[in-house]
Amino acid sequence: MKRDTYTIGLDFGTLSARALLVRTSDGLEIGSAVFDYPHAVMDEMLITPHGAIKLPPDFALQHPRDYFDALDHVLPALLKEYGISAEDIIGIGVDFTTCTLIPTDRTGTPLCFDDRFADNPHAYVKLWKHHAAEPYADRMTELATERGEFWLERYGGRISSEWMIPKVWETLDKAPDVYDAAAYFVDAGDWIVWQLTGNLTRNTCVTGYKALYQNDEYPSADFLSALDPRLASVFSDRLSGPVTPVGTLAGHLTEQAAARFGLRPGIAVAAAVSDAHVTAPSLKVTAPGQMAIVMGTSSVHMLVSEECLPVPGVCGVVRDGLIPGYYGYEAGQTCVGDHFAWFADTLCPADYKDEAAERGISPIALLTEKAAEQKPGQSGILALDWWNGNRSVLADFDLSGLFLGMNLNTRPEDLFRALVEATAYGTRMIIENYRRHGAAVDEIRAAGGIAVKNPFIMQIYADITGMEIRIAGSAQCPSLGSAIFAAYAAGSAAGGYDSLAEAAETMGSLSDRYYRPIPENKAVYDRLYAEYERLHDYLGRGGNDVMKRLRKIRAEQNA
Amino acid sequence: MKRDTYTIGLDFGTLSARALLVRTSDGLEIGSAVFDYPHAVMDEMLITPHGAIKLPPDFALQHPRDYFDALDHVLPALLKEYGISAEDIIGIGVDFTTCTLIPTDRTGTPLCFDDRFADNPHAYVKLWKHHAAEPYADRMTELATERGEFWLERYGGRISSEWMIPKVWETLDKAPDVYDAAAYFVDAGDWIVWQLTGNLTRNTCVTGYKALYQNDEYPSADFLSALDPRLASVFSDRLSGPVTPVGTLAGHLTEQAAARFGLRPGIAVAAAVSDAHVTAPSLKVTAPGQMAIVMGTSSVHMLVSEECLPVPGVCGVVRDGLIPGYYGYEAGQTCVGDHFAWFADTLCPADYKDEAAERGISPIALLTEKAAEQKPGQSGILALDWWNGNRSVLADFDLSGLFLGMNLNTRPEDLFRALVEATAYGTRMIIENYRRHGAAVDEIRAAGGIAVKNPFIMQIYADITGMEIRIAGSAQCPSLGSAIFAAYAAGSAAGGYDSLAEAAETMGSLSDRYYRPIPENKAVYDRLYAEYERLHDYLGRGGNDVMKRLRKIRAEQNA
Repeated sequence: MKRDTYTIGLDFGTLSARALLVRTSDGLEIGSAVFDYPHAVMDEMLITPHGAIKLPPDFALQHPRDYFDALDHVLPALLKEYGISAEDIIGIGVDFTTCTLIPTDRTGTPLCFDDRFADNPHAYVKLWKHHAAEPYADRMTELATERGEFWLERYGGRISSEWMIPKVWETLDKAPDVYDAAAYFVDAGDWIVWQLTGNLTRNTCVTGYKALYQNDEYPSADFLSALDPRLASVFSDRLSGPVTPVGTLAGHLTEQAAARFGLRPGIAVAAAVSDAHVTAPSLKVTAPGQMAIVMGTSSVHMLVSEECLPVPGVCGVVRDGLIPGYYGYEAGQTCVGDHFAWFADTLCPADYKDEAAERGISPIALLTEKAAEQKPGQSGILALDWWNGNRSVLADFDLSGLFLGMNLNTRPEDLFRALVEATAYGTRMIIENYRRHGAAVDEIRAAGGIAVKNPFIMQIYADITGMEIRIAGSAQCPSLGSAIFAAYAAGSAAGGYDSLAEAAETMGSLSDRYYRPIPENKAVYDRLYAEYERLHDYLGRGGNDVMKRLRKIRAEQNA
Repeated sequence: MKRDTYTIGLDFGTLSARALLVRTSDGLEIGSAVFDYPHAVMDEMLITPHGAIKLPPDFALQHPRDYFDALDHVLPALLKEYGISAEDIIGIGVDFTTCTLIPTDRTGTPLCFDDRFADNPHAYVKLWKHHAAEPYADRMTELATERGEFWLERYGGRISSEWMIPKVWETLDKAPDVYDAAAYFVDAGDWIVWQLTGNLTRNTCVTGYKALYQNDEYPSADFLSALDPRLASVFSDRLSGPVTPVGTLAGHLTEQAAARFGLRPGIAVAAAVSDAHVTAPSLKVTAPGQMAIVMGTSSVHMLVSEECLPVPGVCGVVRDGLIPGYYGYEAGQTCVGDHFAWFADTLCPADYKDEAAERGISPIALLTEKAAEQKPGQSGILALDWWNGNRSVLADFDLSGLFLGMNLNTRPEDLFRALVEATAYGTRMIIENYRRHGAAVDEIRAAGGIAVKNPFIMQIYADITGMEIRIAGSAQCPSLGSAIFAAYAAGSAAGGYDSLAEAAETMGSLSDRYYRPIPENKAVYDRLYAEYERLHDYLGRGGNDVMKRLRKIRAEQNA
């Protein structure tokens, strides 16, 4: 009898790292180990060997030692706990928050380990949600628009401050000594792969979605020197390295790393991927027309397609960025669960809070329960889900929220339900936008806290999108996705798979739960969605820029 | 030395009646007596001599015995308490809620006192807020529109179910035996005057604002028979009686009434007036360009003018309806304080409620305090004040509320302040609508709970309207206004006044408090008002009828 083989999925999140051990023959999740980063997110104070330093606004840093510590903890812990022999582990996959960026020396050692730079915030890891590079991102958008750079439309017309070049440029501008000393700026996922394999590679998820790599090229030296002459050669020096499709083989585990973590040297290490995109294979999303949605405080919508179509308002269209061999489309809603938390934190009345406390449930659970008693349209309230701006399809962060339809009988749960519905209308808008521009959306599969835990919300999403929604079967989709990529990188000769679709179909996990549109609800929601769309376009596409003007007045009055 | 003379103002409100004794020489308020109606408002059960009867929806009835009981209590109590001789009391004025309607026999005895009708709700007093006649009002609007009745535009194009003909027609249609037995349907204010003087008169405030009397004529028999042939002669029989300008002499106190209440027979009784319009003289509002606003759960805006201009969206333009000799314009906001109460009752979070309780203040007071710390526009929130529809200037009760501009930092007080501002924008809209159509608004004076008690709100009203606002000096404006009308009806020979302006100037009362626009606030509010107006017109004038469609869906889903 053939011995079982296993892969390990390493998932580096915002606050912790997880290793998941998965059987390749059927995706059975053997077990996992988790490590919380000791430094967590440093957004007010930077902890250095010399003490704490106050950080400027909008900073969000991490300490790379936490990643070493995570690897040192989770890999040996996993092997020890579940008694699987290192011999039977055939590969490792890595996903990381993106774009989380580390400046290193020529050997990959982070610059913050160099005592000369230990007090310089720019020498540390800039976490994905480090937003201090906003002015650099805006300048990039402006220049790319002026110059008509072809790739701009593949990013919905807007460069985010979370991406790679704004973060690098910020360092160049604010801390030229760090920039000068940096041999490389490395995506944290690629940096983990480098530590494991000794190879510096650049995964296509990050190069595509975060570094503007399109049609096998980065932005031109011309564009870059127009931004800042010092950036002209940044992709051939500090951002250099072979571009490697996600999930494909990036290298093999070095002797040194194998010894350190108790694994077998030479096993496959897959190219890294973002912790959102890696969810797709875990949901068996590998074929054109399939969409994976990760629903949490915000939502990400990832679609597989054979074609590269200009779809306005997407966050990115990237070859090999999601599933190797296909174009991956990413769209996003900046505020989903955050809406519901805002409402419960800000406007939940005292009697509801008391009732929730008495029954031992959260205010959100009570609001959900009350909202669930209603039929669609019964409260007469409509909302626009723009409390944190709009990513897709408008790519406009100066927009704000709206409630419409209140009367003197309006109850808190009416507003709460309207917020839930508004986020679902926003998702439908994204789906219809894909379709309108030629990209089929045939199936939806959802992961994330809301998808797994909230049947009320998911039924509304099914009713409003008019589509069946299948729910993740794993509670650890990202690390499962990384384990699937690992099996694909290992290949069938080693006990893995030569086809990613086969790996995902076999190892991916969908629960038996699905949500199907209830026809009478869908009929009402079709009418309500038409109202949402009309207001969306009026307030979001220039019919009335009242939100922008109010924002301007607000800024003036707060100045 | 000349002896002091006095008048009595009788104010019949929704839940109680008040008599105020006022010195004519200077308006000094000697004292008052109040009587709470034992039956209060009967809107669920009708209390009859034979037991309680469940009422249909939208009914709001009163028992006329309560008015007798009120007179029997307050008039003797007033005289006894303050030791003023009946000899020195020269007149009585009466104001009443309108249109509050009583069916009577030929002698003025309410039909409900007849045992045959004691169990019939239509034989009782239909209070102003009895709304069961809505279908009749709608049919009237429809027919008047079709026929192009000239007077319709003087009512903003819409007949209210609170007015006289809808209530009479409802009785005719639903209780023909009551209709047949009724010799008269009498406005409750006129009915009090009838009880005091023995004369059935019809005051111009009610005939004009509530019974469509325009250019010295009621609606034509032609129009009435097109409504319902049985109504053709209603104004020459059941609604007959001499039309008498408000505040002028309606008759003299009968021997019988004088004896019953301990007053001197033959003293002047002024024609009745509504309890809103009577506020004007109490605020010294008697000349063209002066506006009186009564601000409470809802607001009424009354303007004196020399001209009869077609101003869209007014509730009524009536000759002699407000101040004898002038046209009185009435506009209204259906929901003012009701907005603030809704917010505090529905969305005040637990920590605010706790803080308010700890400090011994109301949640509204706490929200006010927090909102008062902000500068205009600082929260970025804008609201439309349509939680209970819009009376003026849109005359559309299918409209609903709006909040716009929220983000994840939005606090309850931001929304609360936006509601306050929205009602002030609504008032500015009314003022600008008057001006745009040729009616000058030069001065504003305000009465009512909000005006007297809430400096925060009143400063916002001054900033937003850009006008100085003077505040009532009396806590009992309606009864003071009635006392002023009584002095005018009595005339100078009796110790009163031959000029209403002089009576109001001398006896009316303004406090020393006024609110003047703060220039830097006004500048910001001018910009915000432009945004309010744009949304007001878009959502209220057919640009997007989303509110009506949501209302329709809501009605369907609740059916």
